[in-house]
Amino acid sequence: MDCPLCNSDGGELIYRHPLFRVIDAREALYPGFLRLVWNTHVQEFSQLPTEQRTLCMNAVVLLEEFVLQQFKPDKVNLATLGNVVPHLHWHVIPRFTDDAHFPAPVWAAAKAAAQLSPRQQTILDTQSTWFGLLNECLQAQFG
Amino acid sequence: MDCPLCNSDGGELIYRHPLFRVIDAREALYPGFLRLVWNTHVQEFSQLPTEQRTLCMNAVVLLEEFVLQQFKPDKVNLATLGNVVPHLHWHVIPRFTDDAHFPAPVWAAAKAAAQLSPRQQTILDTQSTWFGLLNECLQAQFG
Repeated sequence: MDCPLCNSDGGELIYRHPLFRVIDAREALYPGFLRLVWNTHVQEFSQLPTEQRTLCMNAVVLLEEFVLQQFKPDKVNLATLGNVVPHLHWHVIPRFTDDAHFPAPVWAAAKAAAQLSPRQQTILDTQSTWFGLLNECLQAQFG
Repeated sequence: MDCPLCNSDGGELIYRHPLFRVIDAREALYPGFLRLVWNTHVQEFSQLPTEQRTLCMNAVVLLEEFVLQQFKPDKVNLATLGNVVPHLHWHVIPRFTDDAHFPAPVWAAAKAAAQLSPRQQTILDTQSTWFGLLNECLQAQFG
């Protein structure tokens, strides 16, 4: 199957589990934008067996908690869309009132002259530190 | 607190549970767009106690399964954003390759001359039927 998320990790790997992986989404205006990608090709979240669905959601919740504690955003956005790549993945996005789209979703048109806010710049600057910390948190909970 | 989701249902009510409600989102270009609104004011999904979080996700999954079976969309989109109204609510959106934004998210700019696709028109035309059916499905699972 010609699916980019079957053929590659889909971004810089932060953590790998037998059933899923967590990558840095590398969205230029959103440092700290994380993505959980299910390892096997499943289209819709509800199509996972119940136990795997629970595992998946527990991992998304860990990511949200990590983002809240570590980056102190004004809001976190969670979404699984997959219209372009219909292979189950969850977006976990720290949002700041002074980011490029707030309060609009990150998929709306960006504000004019959008750039990183100071708090986002800090996330970018400390990336190697929190990558390691997030990996440890995920390992502690999911092995 | 001046929160629109504390002060009103937020849309046409399809089902009410002691902890959450399901409303028709009434997005003009998206018939069948459902919204689960948590009854109490909680900002982030991860801030729900574990048991309530599981209940919430089970209800979102029921909505996704209903949407898949009933509307046969090409994809379902799930999201909890809440940047404008930071009161926990989940969007469940049936997506069609010929809808107003596909494959872009519904929050992106719409296609030129966007209108309802034939399958979306059918969802709109049969609304009173599937409202009742969805209410029954939710009652059967959640009382």
